[in-house]
Amino acid sequence: MRPVDLIRKKRDGGELATAEITSLVEAFTRGDVPDYQMSAWMMAVLLKGMTTAETAALTEAMLKSGKVMDLGDLQGVKVDKHSTGGVGDKTSLILAPIVAAGGLSVPMISGRGLGHTGGTLDKLEAIPGFSVDLTPGEFMAVLKQCGCAIVGQTAEIVPADKKMYALRDVTGTVESKSLICASIMSKKLAEGIDALVLDVKTGSGAFMKQQKDAELLAQMMVDTGLRMGKKMAALITDMDQPLGRCVGNALEVLECVEILRGERKPMSEDLRELSIDLAASMFFLAEKVSSAEEGKKLAEEMIMSRKALGRFRDMVRLQKGDAEVVNDASRLPTAKNKIEFKADASGYIQSVQCEQVGVASLVLGGGRNKKEDVLDFAVGLELHKKVGDAVKAGEAIATVHYNSDAKLPEALSLLKQAYQIGSNAVTTPRVLVKKIIGT
Amino acid sequence: MRPVDLIRKKRDGGELATAEITSLVEAFTRGDVPDYQMSAWMMAVLLKGMTTAETAALTEAMLKSGKVMDLGDLQGVKVDKHSTGGVGDKTSLILAPIVAAGGLSVPMISGRGLGHTGGTLDKLEAIPGFSVDLTPGEFMAVLKQCGCAIVGQTAEIVPADKKMYALRDVTGTVESKSLICASIMSKKLAEGIDALVLDVKTGSGAFMKQQKDAELLAQMMVDTGLRMGKKMAALITDMDQPLGRCVGNALEVLECVEILRGERKPMSEDLRELSIDLAASMFFLAEKVSSAEEGKKLAEEMIMSRKALGRFRDMVRLQKGDAEVVNDASRLPTAKNKIEFKADASGYIQSVQCEQVGVASLVLGGGRNKKEDVLDFAVGLELHKKVGDAVKAGEAIATVHYNSDAKLPEALSLLKQAYQIGSNAVTTPRVLVKKIIGT
Repeated sequence: MRPVDLIRKKRDGGELATAEITSLVEAFTRGDVPDYQMSAWMMAVLLKGMTTAETAALTEAMLKSGKVMDLGDLQGVKVDKHSTGGVGDKTSLILAPIVAAGGLSVPMISGRGLGHTGGTLDKLEAIPGFSVDLTPGEFMAVLKQCGCAIVGQTAEIVPADKKMYALRDVTGTVESKSLICASIMSKKLAEGIDALVLDVKTGSGAFMKQQKDAELLAQMMVDTGLRMGKKMAALITDMDQPLGRCVGNALEVLECVEILRGERKPMSEDLRELSIDLAASMFFLAEKVSSAEEGKKLAEEMIMSRKALGRFRDMVRLQKGDAEVVNDASRLPTAKNKIEFKADASGYIQSVQCEQVGVASLVLGGGRNKKEDVLDFAVGLELHKKVGDAVKAGEAIATVHYNSDAKLPEALSLLKQAYQIGSNAVTTPRVLVKKIIGT
Repeated sequence: MRPVDLIRKKRDGGELATAEITSLVEAFTRGDVPDYQMSAWMMAVLLKGMTTAETAALTEAMLKSGKVMDLGDLQGVKVDKHSTGGVGDKTSLILAPIVAAGGLSVPMISGRGLGHTGGTLDKLEAIPGFSVDLTPGEFMAVLKQCGCAIVGQTAEIVPADKKMYALRDVTGTVESKSLICASIMSKKLAEGIDALVLDVKTGSGAFMKQQKDAELLAQMMVDTGLRMGKKMAALITDMDQPLGRCVGNALEVLECVEILRGERKPMSEDLRELSIDLAASMFFLAEKVSSAEEGKKLAEEMIMSRKALGRFRDMVRLQKGDAEVVNDASRLPTAKNKIEFKADASGYIQSVQCEQVGVASLVLGGGRNKKEDVLDFAVGLELHKKVGDAVKAGEAIATVHYNSDAKLPEALSLLKQAYQIGSNAVTTPRVLVKKIIGT
């Protein structure tokens, strides 16, 4: 069948056969189907949708466009987590060592931040010496020794997604749930894992603003993974305000280390809870425990025994980073200046806009507007108040860590926009909104 | 606004401003908007539609991508006709001289055939020496001398349409009514005309199979022309069977000459009636007559007085063709062989499939599968029976004019598929289905 016939079929709401989707993706990856046909097809997919079978076929075709990691040598169940991204979302650094300490393998391929959202690789690179560019052999060696490793994507993993994503970005086809699902799932399945837990964000700071959209996407990814023989679960979680206390690369590493050391700080409790919830689901899917509650207990135990901290320290060392950061925070990059951002009125925090907080960290140098931007790992924000907290006029809401005086006013102005203070008492939002277990 | 934002706006069902559409078309024509963005946008247009204002803005932007003919020197009202195409549709060759003889100017830019449908330029080129490639000066000179001229499109006319059409053809976006409307109307308005009559085909052999789709397209084109200050009318006409008696280039010229000579043959009556109806609407729009009935009388008069034949002869001569073909049919290319295709049963003709008849002529050499194919002007079909006619087993249904024995069996097999004979009496279909006058 000619590509134009496949475009027309989808345009008219038809269901494409697996062989049709496979041939389209293969030909596009080879360069035999031009960008202008793929973009028309993706627009038809966005507007007409795809069935579960089609989405699974697309995921599999994309997966097969590149290499799938062979982790057969590894002991234990191989499990990973994927988050759709947000501000202050640093659970990977906490849950990977917890789950590894619990006896599972976590072969994590992660990404970088762009725009107001951060990226796991950037955070790890705030640790002096840490390398996210490992060869497959090095990746395997780290996994064998400490049970978890976090690296960047290589060109061999899902090349179809690289081409498709670049095209979606400029043709208004990013928002298709089926295309999002296939993009995420093909990359995660290329890790050669047995089970996957999804953290699908919802709220003003998330890609999926509406809970129903987040649930639809989560269910689609769960269904796709199940069809491909993987154990699947999804947590729908709140991204109406930043997650945890810190935003900015080195500050976020510090916050994770604190949690892994067993420290409890009020503004970090939502992060701690979500990391434990996600780790618990990973334990449950891997049949390490027989209930989510048991999984949470095991995760707590891995923290309180400092076994997870040990795994984190090992991973940092094996990935060529300065492992002493777990004992001495001053070894992390530190900003030259700090200033408190203060409340201009008394009342309750009504809302904390993620995008403004994320961009405040970005303008200080902690994020990138375009791929080539170089990061300042030291800068960022510590939040002292979150939604529902009472605040007095003049009290510190956040501490800004900065290196450049020139960039400070814009960051402060963004923080002012981000924090809404009002007289009404507001309920503290729950971080876990809903749980979907694949069956 | 960036192109991706315009794509997203249309994708989400928004209405684009005139300036937005203009900038997109301009940038695409310049090469600043790549094909893959335009194809995604056109797919969004196809699936989300455009308002009358958007369609008019697109038409105008496309029109302005090239030159508009300056026909200011011409006497009288400038009027044209456009048909959405079919099999045996040769009205242009009849109505252009009729309307010119009636005192109007007909500056016709026409096209070639592709697939099962024929093209006016191909038919005219069956006349030895006839040239459809005139300079603007030559075109003007022919129009001044005989009131009508039929030429091919130049590169200066609507370059945006050339690029967009090539892309639509391979991205499944041909079928959008708004894009069809803008493509047709921009080219017709580039002729610098005052009034336009549309012949929108409906039925199994037409691009618009359903009458309601044909009516929607017709109304959209009428509305677009009106917005741009043109007088507009549309006839919805039948293309459930071929129009007239002949299919094949030289044979179609012959059929037109017969009608212009005042000859009446039963199988050509629908063609004669439609040509007169269209000419009548052109007279009416140009205010040459005050009713369609009066227009039909004037058209009949132009035929019976042989004034229209004179204009046709003049046009052929002025366009470097052998004008004697109007008196001596043997000067037209003639096929070496003829064979009768006979009925294999007695009964009534239930249907005559346009596509099979068109492809039968094509396989004999009368049409082209791809643009580069060279035509055999002499070959084609003469139909002796049409829908509703009674037929006896063994009676001739059609005469096949052919040059190559090798191609004959496929043509005969296609004719067999085209003609359905059954025992039920069938009503002869009316060629004129509906008339829409722009107000």
